[in-house]
Amino acid sequence: MITNYSPGLHKLVTLEVQKIEKLIESAKFVDYTESILEKYSLEKVGISIHDFENNSFTIAVCLKESHICIHTWPEFNQLTLDVYLCNYLQDNSQKVKTIVNDYIQFFNASIITDHEIYR
Amino acid sequence: MITNYSPGLHKLVTLEVQKIEKLIESAKFVDYTESILEKYSLEKVGISIHDFENNSFTIAVCLKESHICIHTWPEFNQLTLDVYLCNYLQDNSQKVKTIVNDYIQFFNASIITDHEIYR
Repeated sequence: MITNYSPGLHKLVTLEVQKIEKLIESAKFVDYTESILEKYSLEKVGISIHDFENNSFTIAVCLKESHICIHTWPEFNQLTLDVYLCNYLQDNSQKVKTIVNDYIQFFNASIITDHEIYR
Repeated sequence: MITNYSPGLHKLVTLEVQKIEKLIESAKFVDYTESILEKYSLEKVGISIHDFENNSFTIAVCLKESHICIHTWPEFNQLTLDVYLCNYLQDNSQKVKTIVNDYIQFFNASIITDHEIYR
């Protein structure tokens, strides 16, 4: 158990997605995220979901461990995704990397940009 | 007007704050953020607010232009703040920098880490 504050890993990726269905179906992203939270024992404390007129969507999932945010751009076959887990009670860095990989599989996406920030 | 997608600026800062009042008063952060959105002509499309038992808080503000997220750590006199504005209709990079500076003044904070990601 980490009892002092230690920086957590924040991954920021921009992804390219060929089939746009998952870029316009916010409910499927929410369902998948619920399964991710269960799989990795993360706790949701709030969520904000917005569908735009062109069916792109923006979702922020507030976690006890920090947040997951997504913005989709079906018109450009792209999305930006943030997964940030702080290390308050344990080192979650590996979870952050694995969760991003899970989302890449979910979207069947290729990586355009990939940044890792320890903060 | 930028009609093609161009990466936007995402600033991620970790700040140190001596007086913890603003790290435990989520309503004041929300009020200040509303004034920021008005000042910079940004449009909120959703918000998630969570106050923890120790009065630290996590807030995600979903914007038409992307998002603002904060996590406060009053027990460590710290917060992490994200300001990310995409460039869909105009170049918002300078706004991102100015908004982060506004928040630094609001919290009377000093910078621990400061990252700028174009994504």
